[in-house]
Amino acid sequence: MLNMLAVDEIIKNALIEDIGTGDITTIATIPADKIITGKFIAKESGVICGALVVKRVFELIDASVSMQVFLNDGAIVEKGDVIAEISGRAQSILTGERVALNFLQLLSGIATKTRQCVLQVKDTKAMITDTRKTTPGLRVLEKYAVRVGGGRNHRYNLSDGVLIKDNHIKAAGSITAAVTAARSSIPHTLKIEVEVEDFDMITEALGCGADIIMLDNMSIEDMAKAVEIIGGRALVEASGNMCEKDLLTVAKTGVDIISIGALTHTIRAMDISLRF
Amino acid sequence: MLNMLAVDEIIKNALIEDIGTGDITTIATIPADKIITGKFIAKESGVICGALVVKRVFELIDASVSMQVFLNDGAIVEKGDVIAEISGRAQSILTGERVALNFLQLLSGIATKTRQCVLQVKDTKAMITDTRKTTPGLRVLEKYAVRVGGGRNHRYNLSDGVLIKDNHIKAAGSITAAVTAARSSIPHTLKIEVEVEDFDMITEALGCGADIIMLDNMSIEDMAKAVEIIGGRALVEASGNMCEKDLLTVAKTGVDIISIGALTHTIRAMDISLRF
Amino acid sequence: MLNMLAVDEIIKNALIEDIGTGDITTIATIPADKIITGKFIAKESGVICGALVVKRVFELIDASVSMQVFLNDGAIVEKGDVIAEISGRAQSILTGERVALNFLQLLSGIATKTRQCVLQVKDTKAMITDTRKTTPGLRVLEKYAVRVGGGRNHRYNLSDGVLIKDNHIKAAGSITAAVTAARSSIPHTLKIEVEVEDFDMITEALGCGADIIMLDNMSIEDMAKAVEIIGGRALVEASGNMCEKDLLTVAKTGVDIISIGALTHTIRAMDISLRF
Amino acid sequence: MLNMLAVDEIIKNALIEDIGTGDITTIATIPADKIITGKFIAKESGVICGALVVKRVFELIDASVSMQVFLNDGAIVEKGDVIAEISGRAQSILTGERVALNFLQLLSGIATKTRQCVLQVKDTKAMITDTRKTTPGLRVLEKYAVRVGGGRNHRYNLSDGVLIKDNHIKAAGSITAAVTAARSSIPHTLKIEVEVEDFDMITEALGCGADIIMLDNMSIEDMAKAVEIIGGRALVEASGNMCEKDLLTVAKTGVDIISIGALTHTIRAMDISLRF
Amino acid sequence: MLNMLAVDEIIKNALIEDIGTGDITTIATIPADKIITGKFIAKESGVICGALVVKRVFELIDASVSMQVFLNDGAIVEKGDVIAEISGRAQSILTGERVALNFLQLLSGIATKTRQCVLQVKDTKAMITDTRKTTPGLRVLEKYAVRVGGGRNHRYNLSDGVLIKDNHIKAAGSITAAVTAARSSIPHTLKIEVEVEDFDMITEALGCGADIIMLDNMSIEDMAKAVEIIGGRALVEASGNMCEKDLLTVAKTGVDIISIGALTHTIRAMDISLRF
Amino acid sequence: MLNMLAVDEIIKNALIEDIGTGDITTIATIPADKIITGKFIAKESGVICGALVVKRVFELIDASVSMQVFLNDGAIVEKGDVIAEISGRAQSILTGERVALNFLQLLSGIATKTRQCVLQVKDTKAMITDTRKTTPGLRVLEKYAVRVGGGRNHRYNLSDGVLIKDNHIKAAGSITAAVTAARSSIPHTLKIEVEVEDFDMITEALGCGADIIMLDNMSIEDMAKAVEIIGGRALVEASGNMCEKDLLTVAKTGVDIISIGALTHTIRAMDISLRF
Repeated sequence: MLNMLAVDEIIKNALIEDIGTGDITTIATIPADKIITGKFIAKESGVICGALVVKRVFELIDASVSMQVFLNDGAIVEKGDVIAEISGRAQSILTGERVALNFLQLLSGIATKTRQCVLQVKDTKAMITDTRKTTPGLRVLEKYAVRVGGGRNHRYNLSDGVLIKDNHIKAAGSITAAVTAARSSIPHTLKIEVEVEDFDMITEALGCGADIIMLDNMSIEDMAKAVEIIGGRALVEASGNMCEKDLLTVAKTGVDIISIGALTHTIRAMDISLRF
Repeated sequence: MLNMLAVDEIIKNALIEDIGTGDITTIATIPADKIITGKFIAKESGVICGALVVKRVFELIDASVSMQVFLNDGAIVEKGDVIAEISGRAQSILTGERVALNFLQLLSGIATKTRQCVLQVKDTKAMITDTRKTTPGLRVLEKYAVRVGGGRNHRYNLSDGVLIKDNHIKAAGSITAAVTAARSSIPHTLKIEVEVEDFDMITEALGCGADIIMLDNMSIEDMAKAVEIIGGRALVEASGNMCEKDLLTVAKTGVDIISIGALTHTIRAMDISLRF
Repeated sequence: MLNMLAVDEIIKNALIEDIGTGDITTIATIPADKIITGKFIAKESGVICGALVVKRVFELIDASVSMQVFLNDGAIVEKGDVIAEISGRAQSILTGERVALNFLQLLSGIATKTRQCVLQVKDTKAMITDTRKTTPGLRVLEKYAVRVGGGRNHRYNLSDGVLIKDNHIKAAGSITAAVTAARSSIPHTLKIEVEVEDFDMITEALGCGADIIMLDNMSIEDMAKAVEIIGGRALVEASGNMCEKDLLTVAKTGVDIISIGALTHTIRAMDISLRF
Repeated sequence: MLNMLAVDEIIKNALIEDIGTGDITTIATIPADKIITGKFIAKESGVICGALVVKRVFELIDASVSMQVFLNDGAIVEKGDVIAEISGRAQSILTGERVALNFLQLLSGIATKTRQCVLQVKDTKAMITDTRKTTPGLRVLEKYAVRVGGGRNHRYNLSDGVLIKDNHIKAAGSITAAVTAARSSIPHTLKIEVEVEDFDMITEALGCGADIIMLDNMSIEDMAKAVEIIGGRALVEASGNMCEKDLLTVAKTGVDIISIGALTHTIRAMDISLRF
Repeated sequence: MLNMLAVDEIIKNALIEDIGTGDITTIATIPADKIITGKFIAKESGVICGALVVKRVFELIDASVSMQVFLNDGAIVEKGDVIAEISGRAQSILTGERVALNFLQLLSGIATKTRQCVLQVKDTKAMITDTRKTTPGLRVLEKYAVRVGGGRNHRYNLSDGVLIKDNHIKAAGSITAAVTAARSSIPHTLKIEVEVEDFDMITEALGCGADIIMLDNMSIEDMAKAVEIIGGRALVEASGNMCEKDLLTVAKTGVDIISIGALTHTIRAMDISLRF
Repeated sequence: MLNMLAVDEIIKNALIEDIGTGDITTIATIPADKIITGKFIAKESGVICGALVVKRVFELIDASVSMQVFLNDGAIVEKGDVIAEISGRAQSILTGERVALNFLQLLSGIATKTRQCVLQVKDTKAMITDTRKTTPGLRVLEKYAVRVGGGRNHRYNLSDGVLIKDNHIKAAGSITAAVTAARSSIPHTLKIEVEVEDFDMITEALGCGADIIMLDNMSIEDMAKAVEIIGGRALVEASGNMCEKDLLTVAKTGVDIISIGALTHTIRAMDISLRF
C-alpha cells in the first residue's frame, strides 16, 4: 500500500541524520560478530503502523539482519503484545534501533489516534479524513498511517484536488465564477470542493455544480440544516477544529466527511520498545 | 542559529511535496497580478519558532514576496499577537500558506512545550534537554526549536556523543570495560555518558571516570540518593518518561539535566493562522 | 502556471548533462568579456511554449544574462516572428543555447500539436486531453505544454486518479466490485473512471455510479450509441489511437473527452532558432 | 553497453513521477497475492531498444517480479513478435506497466528511426550520427538507442568534443585563430571539428589542421565539391535538416558522416503493448 | 566501522564521474561474457585501508563480481603482498578498476602516513589526531583512514566540538566570557577546547574550566612548561605545523594530543596495483 | 573556465559536511551583528587556484559577505602576497573559513605542483597532462587546477577518450583488432590511443592508424627510439611514474605528452591562511 521507492528516500535520510559518521558507542563496545535477538513490544494499546518501514530500516543498514513481523500494519494491540522479532548483528540492530522506533511510534501514534476518531462515528455513514496539516516531508507516510487507522485521505496536495476558499472566491468574484474557472481548467478526473460559511454560499455552490461542500466551523445546528439543504446533491464535509468536538454529534448531522487536522498535526507517539 | 543550507533542502522537499504540479485551485481562480497582504496571527499563547523558515518558504516560491517579521524566534506571544506580515502576489502566498504554517505551527509547538518544562524548573540548576526521539528528517529544526524554547540539546546523533547502555555494558563485559573501550577510540572532544539502573552501577561508572551518569527510570528518592553519591564527580541526567513526572520534584533531587523525549515525539502544533 | 521548484531540478539536470565539465570550444575561442545579443526566432508557425524555462536556463548559467520575452507561452506565431531577445556574455549564451532550444522546441512542438487537435473539435463540446504516455522525467513540463496548446490534462499519475481497466475488473470480479472497492478507499475528492469495451459494461458501470466512462477503441457508431446510453449520467471519454482518427467525427458522437497519447509520445520539435 | 548507475536515477525518477503516492486503482482492486503473466508484444515492425531498462523498472518496484527477454536490444521485430515475458505480483506489474512501456516505446522508436536512416546509406561509407538535440535528461538513453539502431554517436556534450561554429570564428578572428586556440587548450585525445559554409572556409580549415569539417546546409553539388577539395585530409560531416533530404544522395557525395538532429528531436514512439 | 549509507553516495558519485556514459574502450574490445581474475597487490609497504570500499565499488557496478579480501583494513603490508582477489566479468572489472584504486590508494596513503606518526610517539601517552583540513566531501572516509592507521579523530565538524580561537575570544571579550557563553548553550555531552598562545591564556582557560587546552604553535620549551602549569586539570593538545616537527620531542613534553593537519591535507597515494 | 553548476553541488556538500547543524562555537561567542574583514594571504610561493570557489563558498553561506579578489586563478604568488579580502558578518566568515581554505589550499597545491612540472619542460614541445588518478568526486576541480597550473588535461573519464591497454588487446586478439573495433563504435570526434610496451606494438599500432601511442614505463633510450620510429605519424605520450623521473630528460626524447598521475594523487596543500 506504500510507494516504497519514495519511502526509501525518507528512510535513508533519517538514517544518515541519526547515524552521522557511525555509532561510536556501539563500535567501541560491541564485537562485530555478536548476534542478538530483540522483540518490538507494545507498551500500551493501539494500532500498529510502520512494520514494513522498520524492516526496511534494518535492510538498509545491514541486509543480513532478519525480521519476522507478527502483527502487520493495522493490527490492534494491547500492552505487552509482541509486534515483531529481529535477529542479527548486534552492531547493526543497535545502530538502527532509534530510527526504527521513531518511525514506528510516530506512525502507530497517528493510526491509533485515527482509529479512536473512526470508532466514535462507526455507526454513522461519516468518514474521518486527514488534511494537508502534515509533518513536512512525511506526508506519504502520515497519510498512510491515517488509512491504516481506518481513516480516509483527503487530497494529497495542491495539485490533485480543488478546494475553493474565501480568497479564491473573492478574487474570482463569486463562487460561481470560481467553480466555473476551475472546471474549465482542471483535469476532468477531479471533483470540485467549495468551502462555505453560510447557507447562501451553499445555495450558490449547489447551483454551479460543486461536487463537495465543506462546512467551515459551523455549529452543530447549522451543519444539520446544511445537510438538509444539500439533500444529497453534493458530498458534505465538516471541518474546523473537529478534534475538539464530539465527533458522534457531528456525524449525526448527516455529514459525509469529517476532516481533522489534528490527526497529523498533534501527534502522540505510541509507546513501543525494542527489548533484548 | 540555523544551518540554512541544510534547512533549505528540507523546505524545498516540503514545497515539492505540497505543491505537486501546481496549485490548481489558485491558478484557476486568482489573477496572476493580484497582490494581497496577510498577517500571521497567534491564536493562542506560546513561543514563536520558525519565522525565518517561513520567510524562506516564500522566497523559494517567489522572490518578490516580502515578509516583515515583528516577533522573532523566541518571542513569547499571546492570542491575537501579529507575528509577521506578508505581502506580494496572491498566487504565490496562497500556494505557500500551508507549508509555511505547517513549519511554524510544528516548531512553535515544540518551543512552547519546551518553555513550559523549562519554567517548571527555573528556580533550580536543572537543564531541560531533548533526546534523539525526533521526527525523522527534521532533527535539525526540532532541536533548534528546543533551544528557542529555552531548552538545551542532548547529543545530535550516534556519532557526536557516547551513551553506554545496558547492551553495550553486557557486550563489553562491564561498565569499566565499556568506558575504557570508548575512551580509547572516540574523539577526545566528547564526554562519555553511562546509563545506570542502580547504585552499584553508579559506583562503577564513577570509578572508571564516566563524565555523565544517566539515571534511567529511577524513583525520586533514588535520584536524590544518586546525586548524593555522585557528589559532583559527574554530571547527572534524569531520564525515562520525564514528561509524566513533576519536573520540579525531579529537579529538586539535584540532577543537572532532565532529558525529555516527549519534547519532540509528542507534539501539539501551536495554533497560528494566516489572515488576509 | 508551473511549479518552478520542480522544473528547476529538470533544468539543472539538463545543463549538467550538456555542459559536462565546460564548453571547451567556447572557452578556447570566445573572450570572457565579449557581449552578444541574440533573438529566438520561429522558423515555422506554431504555439510557443517554454519561454520561462529558457529564461531560467540562462539565469542558472549566468545571472547577468538578460532576456526579454516578446511572445509568451501560448502565443501563436508565424515563421519569422521574434519570440525573445537575449543579451549578455557570449560565453554564457553559447553554452546554454542548445539546452534552451531543446526545451523550447520540444514544448512548443507539443503545444502546437495539441492546438491542431483542439482546433479540429473547437465547434463541439469535446475536450482534448493528454495521457500518462509522456517522456520519463518530463511529465510536469509536457502536461503544461498540453495546457498551453489549449488541451486539458488527464490524471497526472497513478495516485491522483482512478482508472479501472480490464485487469482490475477481472481481479475484483466485476465492474461493480471494482468500483465499490475503489470508492471505499480513495480520497473523496477523486472521480472514478471505468474503461469499457461494450454496452453491457457501460450499463454495469453506470449502475454502480462510475463518474467517467472510457470507451476503449470503439467504432464511431458504437461511441455514438454509448453516448446515447449514458445520457449524461457520466462523463464520456473516447480513447485508443485517437491521433489516427478524424477527431471531429469522434467529437460529433457527443463524447466529452478525447484523450490522445500521441500528444506526448510522438513529438515533432518545432523549428526555432537562436540568431545572433 | 549502458552505464546502469546513471540510468537507475532516470528510472527511479520516472517511477516516482508516475506512481506518486501509490497506484490507488490497483491497490483497491487487486489482491496483494495475485500473480499474473504478461507478454510485451510488438504491434508494428521495428528495432527493439530498452529491454534492460524495462527489466530494471520492475526490479526497482518489486525484486520478486521475473522477466525473461526473448528479443534483446537491437532485435528487428515484426508485428506480433513477443519481446519479453514478465511474471509476478499483479500489483507490481500493473504499477510499473506504463513507465516500462514509456521507456520501451520511446527508445525503440529512436532505434527504429535510426535504422531506417542507416539502411538508406548502407551501400556507402557514410555513417549516420545523432546530435545534441536530445530530450533533456535522457541523452544517455537516447544516444544508446541510436547505437542500437545502427547509428553512431556524435559528441556527447560540450566538454567532450570541439565544434567551432560561426560565433567562435568571429570572436577568435579567423578559423585559424579558433583552431589554434582550441588545440592549445583541449585534451589531446579530442579531434577538432569546424563548421563551414563555403569553400574558402574549407581551405582555411584544412590549412590549420582541422580534423573534421562539417558542411552546414550545403547543396548536394557543393557537398560533392567539398568532399573532392578535402580529399581525405579531414573527415567530412554533412549537417542541416538532413532528415528532409534523400540520405542516399547525400551519402553518394562521399561524406563520411551524416548527422541528423531529428533522430532524437522528432520522435515517434514504437507501438508495443503489454498483454496479459 | 563505517556508515556505508553515507559512503555509498560518495562511491556512486565517483563512479558516475569516472564512467560517464560508459567505458567505450572496454565495450568495444572486450566480449560481454569474458571472465577475468585480478589481484590487488601492494607495490610498497604501508597500511591497507579501503578494502570494503573497493568491494562496494564493484558491487555497485555489477553484483555478480566476487571479491575475496585477504588483508583487511589496518593490515600492515610489504611490497608484493596480495590484498584481495577479484573475479568476474572483465567489462565490469576494467570499468571499475580506476575508481577502486583511487579510493584504495588515497585511503591507504592516509592510513600509512598516520601510522608513521603514531609509531614515532608509541612509547609516550600522546595520541595523534587529525583536523578538519580534509578533502572536501571525503571527510567520513579520510577520518576513518586516520583511525585505521592508529590515529584518533578530532572533532568531525563545527557542530560536534567546541574550539574557541582568538576571534571568538576577542568577540566575547575574554576567554572566560567565551567559555561561559559556550557552556551555557552547547550540548552537555561536548567538552570545551580553548586555543591559547601564552601562559596567561592558559591560566585563564583553566580558571573557567576549559576541558581541553590547545597550544598553538608553541616552542618545545613552552609546551613543556604549559603541560606543567596545566598539571592534569585539562587535556593538552599540541597544534600547528606538527608534521614539520619531531613528534617524539613534542610528545615528550607531556601533551595528550598532537593534531596534524597534514595527515589529510598533504597526501601521498600508496602505490597499489590491480594485476591480471 | 569552470562549470559552476557542477561545482556548486561539490561546495554545498562540503559545507554541509563541515557545518553540520551549525558552528556552535561561533554562535555562542560572536554577536550576530559583528562585522569583520580578513585577508587570504599566501604563506609560501605558488600558483593560486580556487579564488572563485572560495567566493562561492561564502555566497552560499551568506549572500551579504563581500569578497574582493586581488590575485585571480593562475597568479603566481610569493609568501606574504594578499590573494583576496573578505568582509562581512563575522559569524558567516568564521563558519566558512575552513571549507574555503580546504578548497583553496588543495587546488593551489595542485596548480603549483603542475607548474613546477611544466617549467621543467618549458623549452621543449612536451605538454604535461594529468590522468584519471584524481580524488573521487573532485575531478572537475582538480583537472581545472591542472590547467590553471599550465598543464593540459588528458581524457576526463572512460567515455570521452579511448585508451587501449593490454587487457583490451588480449581480449580483442591484437592491437589491430582492438583499434578496428574501437573505430567502428566510438564517436568520430575522439582519437584512439594505444598503450604499448615495445617496438613491435608500436609498429602494429601505427599500422592500424592509432592516433596516440602511449609509451608505458619505457627507458629514456627506448622512448627516444620510439619517437624516432613513430616519426610524427601519431602523438607520443610518455607515461608511468613520471614524477620520479627527470622530466626534461623525458621531454628531450621528443615525446609530445608526459602524463603524470602524481599531479593529482599525491597532493601537498599550499599553505594559505585567512588573517583577520
